[in-house]
Amino acid sequence: MTQNPQSSEFPASTAGSGSAARPLKVALVGFGTVGRSVAKILCADPAGPLRLISICNRNVQSKKSDALPANIRWIDSFDEVLASDAEIVVELIGGLEPAGTLIRRALRAGKSVVTANKLLIAESGPELVELAAASGQRIEFGASVAGGIPAIMGIEQGLAGDRLFQIQGILNGTCNFILTQMEAHGASFATALAEAQKLGFAEADPSSDIDGIDARAKLVILAQAGLHMRVRAEQISCRPISTIEAVDFAYAHDLSCTIRQISSAKKVSPTSGERDKLFAAVQPALVPLTSLIAHVEGGRNLVASTGEFSGQMVFSGFGAGGDPTAVAVVSDLIAIATSGGGPARPPAPIEIPEAVSGDFTIRHYLRLVINDRPGIIAALATVLSRHGISIDAVLQKPGYPHSALPFVITLEPCSTSLVARALEEIARMDFHVQPPLHLPIFAE
Amino acid sequence: MTQNPQSSEFPASTAGSGSAARPLKVALVGFGTVGRSVAKILCADPAGPLRLISICNRNVQSKKSDALPANIRWIDSFDEVLASDAEIVVELIGGLEPAGTLIRRALRAGKSVVTANKLLIAESGPELVELAAASGQRIEFGASVAGGIPAIMGIEQGLAGDRLFQIQGILNGTCNFILTQMEAHGASFATALAEAQKLGFAEADPSSDIDGIDARAKLVILAQAGLHMRVRAEQISCRPISTIEAVDFAYAHDLSCTIRQISSAKKVSPTSGERDKLFAAVQPALVPLTSLIAHVEGGRNLVASTGEFSGQMVFSGFGAGGDPTAVAVVSDLIAIATSGGGPARPPAPIEIPEAVSGDFTIRHYLRLVINDRPGIIAALATVLSRHGISIDAVLQKPGYPHSALPFVITLEPCSTSLVARALEEIARMDFHVQPPLHLPIFAE
Repeated sequence: MTQNPQSSEFPASTAGSGSAARPLKVALVGFGTVGRSVAKILCADPAGPLRLISICNRNVQSKKSDALPANIRWIDSFDEVLASDAEIVVELIGGLEPAGTLIRRALRAGKSVVTANKLLIAESGPELVELAAASGQRIEFGASVAGGIPAIMGIEQGLAGDRLFQIQGILNGTCNFILTQMEAHGASFATALAEAQKLGFAEADPSSDIDGIDARAKLVILAQAGLHMRVRAEQISCRPISTIEAVDFAYAHDLSCTIRQISSAKKVSPTSGERDKLFAAVQPALVPLTSLIAHVEGGRNLVASTGEFSGQMVFSGFGAGGDPTAVAVVSDLIAIATSGGGPARPPAPIEIPEAVSGDFTIRHYLRLVINDRPGIIAALATVLSRHGISIDAVLQKPGYPHSALPFVITLEPCSTSLVARALEEIARMDFHVQPPLHLPIFAE
Repeated sequence: MTQNPQSSEFPASTAGSGSAARPLKVALVGFGTVGRSVAKILCADPAGPLRLISICNRNVQSKKSDALPANIRWIDSFDEVLASDAEIVVELIGGLEPAGTLIRRALRAGKSVVTANKLLIAESGPELVELAAASGQRIEFGASVAGGIPAIMGIEQGLAGDRLFQIQGILNGTCNFILTQMEAHGASFATALAEAQKLGFAEADPSSDIDGIDARAKLVILAQAGLHMRVRAEQISCRPISTIEAVDFAYAHDLSCTIRQISSAKKVSPTSGERDKLFAAVQPALVPLTSLIAHVEGGRNLVASTGEFSGQMVFSGFGAGGDPTAVAVVSDLIAIATSGGGPARPPAPIEIPEAVSGDFTIRHYLRLVINDRPGIIAALATVLSRHGISIDAVLQKPGYPHSALPFVITLEPCSTSLVARALEEIARMDFHVQPPLHLPIFAE
């Protein structure tokens, strides 16, 4: 298709533009990549339901942009924002503080809040929702998870009629970029990470992405929105993707799977009167090629919910970047504006799980790299059998040296902790060239 | 995972249950598969924000279910529904009439409406939204497109901050089931259709599905919700999937593609002052295996929107069936209940396109089945060249008889109408064993 799909000016037909009501006054706090995109979108629709009246940032004079209307006030003090007649504060500074204090003060001052702050919402989301309700205001945080994907609105409102019991996601674009590079080019983890850093997909210190810390905060928020369960980030176990090798993709493909960093949370109801339990983890995992989750490429994100009535629902799109994240922020602003800026909808009751465990009962993939000699399979089988673990299959691809031979054992469903205990024993054997690796194999 | 994820009773933690407000009274009209699921979900949450007070159907006495609370009224007259104190009417009878009259009367009587009626919303959606606004009521129709997928809420509200210019979708589960069966098993269209009918995925007369009529109504609704463009179903060109053969999947795979029934609508802004133009069609098409749309299996649906800021966003889930569709209905009910049953949000301005055309400029796939002899490629190339069409590649798989030899020509981007004209001339040549087929090749 050759036509240019984008007109040079903002058409009058954007969603909120039909509002005849007085536009709501918006103050933007934090003028980085997302902030600039938010300002651009808001100012492109002067007839819309929102008016950007001020932008607050440290050293704001150095940030001033001539591309924005002259009547926007550029300020560098929170106090001035809070004392102004802004009706909604957009918090884009990130981190727990001073963002948390700013948001609490804004709500108490009778302003609604829109934020993209995953750390703060994971830490204090339910408390802030309650504070907003008590103040007759709203707080929206659609941009805090998976950037431009309307996942929170989708599962909280679009699937409000269902009972969701599972959330799975690809919630970190850096990990997904690295893993899809390894898959496509047979690259090592180190090479793919360096490439991601060169292209700006990974930070100089990528540990928060690689180790799962970033995705974990988003999983906490999704567990609240979709499963109505309150869990602290520290309760969710994380495993890094840095243990994955190119050979794991080759074996995964033989199993009709690929490997992705999967964030998953599953509510399990007890048979007796206890409270629900939550199984949750962020970890590299095998996922079947027949699932959409296996086909999320590069920096894209995905959120999949499973409900009793709707089955599996998938939301996928760009999980980061200024423009996609700004769309989530502006959509939240429009939601507040078109509701008349009225009080929050009542917060959904939040359940504290009886326990939070990463100990999924699931099929497993074991990959060992050994200095080959007779009797190794027998030795491994003996240990696994002693732990009550059943072997599903043994895979050994040709073409590798005997001195560093990678091979794979798949296991029938058993608990991850049981596998870890067996592997501890196996790791003490003297034939390993690398530490053995275990990954869960998610079914569709 | 071995634990049962579903508890036997409805937990108190469903989305709307926190509402302290008086529950809204709901009347259900139409008690088929979806209606029964809606009733089941509503009655499972007696503490929720909605109370089912009556069920209306022809011969309602024969439909009565003991599984539902005894205080539900079973009635068989619309008048009784309209005269009752129900605050929301759920219309699940389908078709243009009498559903349209019922909905108009309900709105005028001061009741909000939730409907799953794709034909009526495609025909009269904007008019009904205006009537609802004028009556201080709401009409919601999330279930009218793609069953349980919250696509309308997702693009209308979740992406409200963006300017969408393209919608693509897999909007008919019957066609998707048939095509994925043909792909997986090399089955003929007739065999796959018979299998779909046996399994209840296709009706005895499947023409509305196969020919694209069903998907077209949904595309009209999505073009309204996402592109804010008003188009009549008859303006959208449809081509049936019945022309697809098993060999087309073999060739599509060689081109790193698969074949799906694709509904697509693209807004193109003119360079001069004319109004926007809409390119829209429902047709079988090649889609790249690197796209999520290629991996939608069986009866699942998918809606993909493309926006200026958010890029491509994908929503996928079960597009039909009682329970998924009921989730969309109940989610719409909860949206109305949690907004306090107040007046509708202002309807988005709707643009009438300057023109609606199915004449996409795009790469094409030509498949011919010929009685082979020398000079055929040269003859075809001469005709294509005379029409100014450039050949991209010629593919001929081994193993077919010379008397019925399928082969494929791919074309550089050109308009579908140009390809059709050239094919008209080509079809008159004497070597065809079957009529030649042309399909668009969508890029990611």
